[in-house]
Amino acid sequence: MAMGEFDLIERYFKRPARHAVLGVGDDCALLQPTPGMQWAISSDMLVEGRHFLSTVDPVRLGHKALAVNLSDLAACGARPVAFTLSLALPRADEAWLAGFSEGLLALADAHGCELVGGDTTQGPLNISITVFGEVPPDQALLRHGAQPGDDIYLSGTVGDARLALEVFRGHQAITGEAFERCRLRMELPTPRVALGLALRGIAHAALDISDGLLGDLGHVLQRSQVGAVIETGWLQQSAAVTPDLLALPWLRRLDLALAGGDDYELLFTAPKSHRERVHAAAHDSQTPVTRIGHITAEPGLRVLDPQGQPVTRRFSSFDHFQP
Amino acid sequence: MAMGEFDLIERYFKRPARHAVLGVGDDCALLQPTPGMQWAISSDMLVEGRHFLSTVDPVRLGHKALAVNLSDLAACGARPVAFTLSLALPRADEAWLAGFSEGLLALADAHGCELVGGDTTQGPLNISITVFGEVPPDQALLRHGAQPGDDIYLSGTVGDARLALEVFRGHQAITGEAFERCRLRMELPTPRVALGLALRGIAHAALDISDGLLGDLGHVLQRSQVGAVIETGWLQQSAAVTPDLLALPWLRRLDLALAGGDDYELLFTAPKSHRERVHAAAHDSQTPVTRIGHITAEPGLRVLDPQGQPVTRRFSSFDHFQP
Repeated sequence: MAMGEFDLIERYFKRPARHAVLGVGDDCALLQPTPGMQWAISSDMLVEGRHFLSTVDPVRLGHKALAVNLSDLAACGARPVAFTLSLALPRADEAWLAGFSEGLLALADAHGCELVGGDTTQGPLNISITVFGEVPPDQALLRHGAQPGDDIYLSGTVGDARLALEVFRGHQAITGEAFERCRLRMELPTPRVALGLALRGIAHAALDISDGLLGDLGHVLQRSQVGAVIETGWLQQSAAVTPDLLALPWLRRLDLALAGGDDYELLFTAPKSHRERVHAAAHDSQTPVTRIGHITAEPGLRVLDPQGQPVTRRFSSFDHFQP
Repeated sequence: MAMGEFDLIERYFKRPARHAVLGVGDDCALLQPTPGMQWAISSDMLVEGRHFLSTVDPVRLGHKALAVNLSDLAACGARPVAFTLSLALPRADEAWLAGFSEGLLALADAHGCELVGGDTTQGPLNISITVFGEVPPDQALLRHGAQPGDDIYLSGTVGDARLALEVFRGHQAITGEAFERCRLRMELPTPRVALGLALRGIAHAALDISDGLLGDLGHVLQRSQVGAVIETGWLQQSAAVTPDLLALPWLRRLDLALAGGDDYELLFTAPKSHRERVHAAAHDSQTPVTRIGHITAEPGLRVLDPQGQPVTRRFSSFDHFQP
């Protein structure tokens, strides 16, 4: 891009360094780690047409680009510290940059997570963020710690983001009001950072659900070398299903909630003895948490219907915007 | 991409964690910073057609994608520790992935810089790397420390990468052997990590040259609120110009060396009293270093011809692959 366009980009993203020793503008940013803490690092790349629709409001896109990264920190129980943003843009569109940076930096500020560097270049729209957080040694929530007998929990609600996508695709019709609610869940996901922090020392294993509840749970089972039973009574009435999802036929609801994807909720396991601590963590972090099953020593993943009978239906993993 | 394609990608990039507490495969990587050290962080995004030609050997592309990031650490005097790679690919091409990962990981191994995480997605080819290094507090080489009277130095050679590009564009004809040499400089740049480390406590200011010597020097002058005189006698015969560049007419040589770009050499300033230490640093790091001018209190950048007369020619900054 011409230098004038770089100046434009700098105007929207460059702010004085706060916690960073040195922020945007040199060859590197410099950060002083808190003594004794470990660093949690995660990267996510968002591509137009695959992770977001070209028509999305840039304010919401800025929010979501950082939110999916903060969700990874949340899943590890790490406190957000800083991030870098690399951005390929077809052209320097001022209205787009103003909106995108507004949504991005508002969420960053809400989590005290500082933009410390990155890159901008001309190219097909691509948003690549790397986020850094801190966690005390041996307190990170990982995928491999699930134990037989553990309860399985879910934060927030699932299925709504995928429902919005199905409406966008013309595969599902819902009321305009319901669509707006689901679209908010798709376009403005809430990273569960406070819950992740509150679950340190309580949860045995955790991850965030981006590809669908059952598919992502599969990663925990594989790493932990255990199995699981997922109940579905909570899909008839609980904090984890919205009225919009409840309004759908049972099998459709099951599909969207268990394999929809794009939820950015935390899925975690904790021993039965910690039920009260889990409730306290949910309460303290103001995050709804629902118990949806338990870990078994026997490998494999079984889904039970509300009558306790096995569901034999196959669920496929979320494939983002692929048809 | 289909899960099978993700497996393919994992095969080429996933290796057991070495220094990292936790490497590729969980929501986050975990690193344990060395007590007392600061973290240097840099991100670079490479886009096809802008930062590399679509015909480039993927082994060389893998090397270059990491090299340009390591060059930023070198410019700060930071020791490489780890990096993340986010990759958008039109399709999972096994031969391409094998070559790209080979070039990338060979350079990573040579610098003890561990791949700890990242993301892969389908999309227009885009390579986004974030690299982490360590540097003791107050020892990072920055852009704002240049002082009047400082010598200005350059590592390695400049102009060859741009010469190769001009040949690719059909703007310049050189011998086949000369082209292969210049093409190596364009496609396999050497990050000056050892020199950057050796310059801690010696250099007042440093950066790496990616957009052209004069344009990048401008950043140092602006940050340091100083001016500079650049001599050009070294362009007639020195370690900083290759025979291939020497074979060109004077004005062409001047353009390529001073404004060519894509060099990934270090430009740094150091007080006259440190000349012996600079030579020792160059010797110890086995990196040629050439003195090319000095910093002035008076603002502005003056280029002198070998007779000491001002060069009034205008130099424009490197614009990568834009025409």
